[in-house]
Amino acid sequence: MNPTIKERLQLAYAAQESRLFYSAWPESPRAYAEDGMQSGLLAFQSLLTQNFVGLQTHGSEGWIGEEISPYFMTGLGIKYPAFSPNTLIQNAELAQKIWSSTSIDLRATILINALDSVANRFFEIAYATMHTTGQGFMMGFQASGPHANDRALEVLAMAYKELTRFPSDINWVKNMGKFDLALQKNYKAIPKGVALVIGCSTFPTWNTLPGLFGSLMTGNVGIVKPHPKSVLPIAIVVAEMQKALVAAGLPASVVQLGVDTLANPIAKELAEHNAVKLIDYTGGSAFGEYIESLPGKTVFTEKAGVNSVIIESISDAAAVFSNIAFSASLYSGQLCTAPQNIFVPATGIQTPDGNMSYDTVVSGIANAIQNLVENPKMGSGVLGAIQNDATDKRIKDVSLGRRLALQSMPVPNLEFADARTASPVVIAVEADDVTTWRHEHFGPILFVIKTLDASHSLSLASESAQSLGAITCLCYSNDVAYMNQVESTMNKVFTPVSFNFTGAAFVTQHAAFSDFHVTGGNPSGNATFTDAQFINRRFVWVGNRKM
Amino acid sequence: MNPTIKERLQLAYAAQESRLFYSAWPESPRAYAEDGMQSGLLAFQSLLTQNFVGLQTHGSEGWIGEEISPYFMTGLGIKYPAFSPNTLIQNAELAQKIWSSTSIDLRATILINALDSVANRFFEIAYATMHTTGQGFMMGFQASGPHANDRALEVLAMAYKELTRFPSDINWVKNMGKFDLALQKNYKAIPKGVALVIGCSTFPTWNTLPGLFGSLMTGNVGIVKPHPKSVLPIAIVVAEMQKALVAAGLPASVVQLGVDTLANPIAKELAEHNAVKLIDYTGGSAFGEYIESLPGKTVFTEKAGVNSVIIESISDAAAVFSNIAFSASLYSGQLCTAPQNIFVPATGIQTPDGNMSYDTVVSGIANAIQNLVENPKMGSGVLGAIQNDATDKRIKDVSLGRRLALQSMPVPNLEFADARTASPVVIAVEADDVTTWRHEHFGPILFVIKTLDASHSLSLASESAQSLGAITCLCYSNDVAYMNQVESTMNKVFTPVSFNFTGAAFVTQHAAFSDFHVTGGNPSGNATFTDAQFINRRFVWVGNRKM
Repeated sequence: MNPTIKERLQLAYAAQESRLFYSAWPESPRAYAEDGMQSGLLAFQSLLTQNFVGLQTHGSEGWIGEEISPYFMTGLGIKYPAFSPNTLIQNAELAQKIWSSTSIDLRATILINALDSVANRFFEIAYATMHTTGQGFMMGFQASGPHANDRALEVLAMAYKELTRFPSDINWVKNMGKFDLALQKNYKAIPKGVALVIGCSTFPTWNTLPGLFGSLMTGNVGIVKPHPKSVLPIAIVVAEMQKALVAAGLPASVVQLGVDTLANPIAKELAEHNAVKLIDYTGGSAFGEYIESLPGKTVFTEKAGVNSVIIESISDAAAVFSNIAFSASLYSGQLCTAPQNIFVPATGIQTPDGNMSYDTVVSGIANAIQNLVENPKMGSGVLGAIQNDATDKRIKDVSLGRRLALQSMPVPNLEFADARTASPVVIAVEADDVTTWRHEHFGPILFVIKTLDASHSLSLASESAQSLGAITCLCYSNDVAYMNQVESTMNKVFTPVSFNFTGAAFVTQHAAFSDFHVTGGNPSGNATFTDAQFINRRFVWVGNRKM
Repeated sequence: MNPTIKERLQLAYAAQESRLFYSAWPESPRAYAEDGMQSGLLAFQSLLTQNFVGLQTHGSEGWIGEEISPYFMTGLGIKYPAFSPNTLIQNAELAQKIWSSTSIDLRATILINALDSVANRFFEIAYATMHTTGQGFMMGFQASGPHANDRALEVLAMAYKELTRFPSDINWVKNMGKFDLALQKNYKAIPKGVALVIGCSTFPTWNTLPGLFGSLMTGNVGIVKPHPKSVLPIAIVVAEMQKALVAAGLPASVVQLGVDTLANPIAKELAEHNAVKLIDYTGGSAFGEYIESLPGKTVFTEKAGVNSVIIESISDAAAVFSNIAFSASLYSGQLCTAPQNIFVPATGIQTPDGNMSYDTVVSGIANAIQNLVENPKMGSGVLGAIQNDATDKRIKDVSLGRRLALQSMPVPNLEFADARTASPVVIAVEADDVTTWRHEHFGPILFVIKTLDASHSLSLASESAQSLGAITCLCYSNDVAYMNQVESTMNKVFTPVSFNFTGAAFVTQHAAFSDFHVTGGNPSGNATFTDAQFINRRFVWVGNRKM
């Protein structure tokens, strides 16, 4: 293997093991080509209304595509090769015969080369992400670019470590008293089969790459089934992966893109196919539970969750409210890590200036959001656009007839006058009004829940994480005993806690190499990026013995 | 932690990582106390017809026990405390509050101390194993004693490695351009909950300890539900574990023994209980598939398999036939690793003396078995006794109206005149008679299957492993190309291959620290002793962050 490839994997694994900060691709667009934005935009624009070039088309049956830009509010007009599930499986099985016999060194080299090529298209991918997901430019760049690549490298590094954990050949000798029994043994990591990766509409590369790279690195072949409304970013990535495969003399169909439409979905047929042994899924809970229930499959899911904020006491009200406002507003609350339910005692919270009432907290949060939304330098960039009409409708529905501390507003966008935007609605609600707050409201919808006291807040947050799932929990407290209680109670329901985040620390951000994303222990998903089992469950150790 | 405990874990993990020979407890009875056999026998005898002493009885509802010695053919008369499933769960949940907050160092110390105490009772356990499972003394000693302890230590070592893989606390610093963002982070391995371990009748400790020690070491509490006919060996182990817990000031009910009867089984009620999150199961396929289908549980199974022997060419016919005879006769074919189907080409096999016909191979194997069975120094010790009447009946049923190369015979046993014994029946069968050979016949039942050629043998063995499961495959061949083909074809269906075993190498033996037992990739089970995921799936990483 190229020594620098091996060094990069070792560096990345050392970071994972230490959990300290590490990034292989800078997150600032300024670290890349000076004309990156301009040429990325041109590259993106040149794709519009065209058949997408660069994906293998062998066996395809025409062209399909139905993406709509949440900024333009018109179709992108990009079409992708359409394949029947059977063709995808046949291509995959042919490719697998070759891919599963490649060395892990060759796999690592090809997959890292692909990531490097993807990095040359980060700006183009950023625009592709904006105009499919509705993310702002900066988030589109970071999440679909360097952060997604970092998550993929993290997986490759963990996989390299796990695949080389045991020797490939040994001489085993056991003394039997009067003689030695000697056996030659070998140990092989046998891939499970065809891996299906089902993408989501909001994070088409970030949520797809970990499972895809994990399955490929361990010798399985991959079929990516993107959300039909968010294809372009992952199409660019898969095209670069296929290019790297072909450059190495291997079949492009080691990784395939299986695009479908809302009217003719193919995910179920693929998932249920006997050849498909591995499934990575990001999306809604109902389909996720169906995927988890399929017999004979190894499944990794990230489903919905309801994330909580617990406010017990604070030091700097402005800093706290602005931090919550940012996390709730970022990409209009469409992150899986975004808070939904804010628990505040009816008796108020402690501050350095004495007690702050529940109502003051509610209006503090509402005002901070309003200031952010109306800030012309921040608003549209931070909030981006709403990915789909269902989310838009959900905001309107939840607002009807409820006590709104802040109503959802359009987000002024100078660049895209037609953008589908909506700022967070803030709803003050009693703890016992569980039909209102105690289920997932995906999108920019915040409840400030009036609880009996801080202990009640914790028990509601914990119970909700256990029953509905949670990916994050943000807690503000200056009371060490309470903090310990929150940490141990939420950890017991497999929910990580972030304490007293202000400034540039946001609960929505999970850093590659350091933060596990989704624990896998509660209903928000059954797996985590990236622990060892995220890799090890994709292959099987088999040992042979010879006299 | 006691430094020697840590050293022992590190030594054991180093062995696992290198896969070289290692054993923490010698397998020869002579390495133990000189009067071990005598005092072990007395200890065993003193347990007969008594209420078993040493298990916690809090909340028990009387005494039950229905074990029958396959050697005496009378009941042992030993009774164990009976608990309702609800009592077991309540005890477990109380204990869990304490156990999950103990340090991994304390857990390791207690569990290794327990293994050391168990080692003091290896002889007693050997007799207990003989008189529940029907194993011969030597196998009862080795399998339930040092080999089971080694497998448990292997699990503890892997768990210690995995639980300390990531730091418990770090300072994470990310440069944000003009300032550094600093967060304190911690990482916790949170146990999943109550672990149920369902044992089997033939290997009551060897198959129970890995899952039990894996769950306990990772902070879960355990309920062992032994097979009602094979309780005593694991009762002794659990009693020693409870003693070690109590000595450390911890609740005995961190591990409980939940005995039941054939008439009133409790496995299902326990398995389906919401508090039970982990299940380790060894036993038949039907119940194993039910266990695997339970939603919301993390499940590790070892079910049935059909193991193959493929004979293509041999160097030393006598050595080969005697090796096969031993593996087929050991514990009367009641090992999960024992061969059932021997594939031999109709055209015969190559030997140094020219072609050997199919019929000669059949009679060679039959004769070797007969010689072993009738050898007064070997027979009864190697074959032991038949654990239950169902196996005995299966031998008789399969023999009816079939072409027997060797019929099953009683095994002369000078010590136990009433022992339930049966030597292997050898049945010559055509490849297309699939209703005869192509399903599991648990016990001393061997088919020598006449195939078209060596390639046909391989495809039948491979297809059988894929559909029915297989834990082992033994191949005899001097043709390197064929051997490679067998290895890659059987490995693709997740079956390990042992080549050309003669002398003291037996396909039935899987060595701790070196051989994975069951791959987890075919229907014979979904897990392996002991890879990293055998540990990692028992707990969840949760990371917390503080500003």
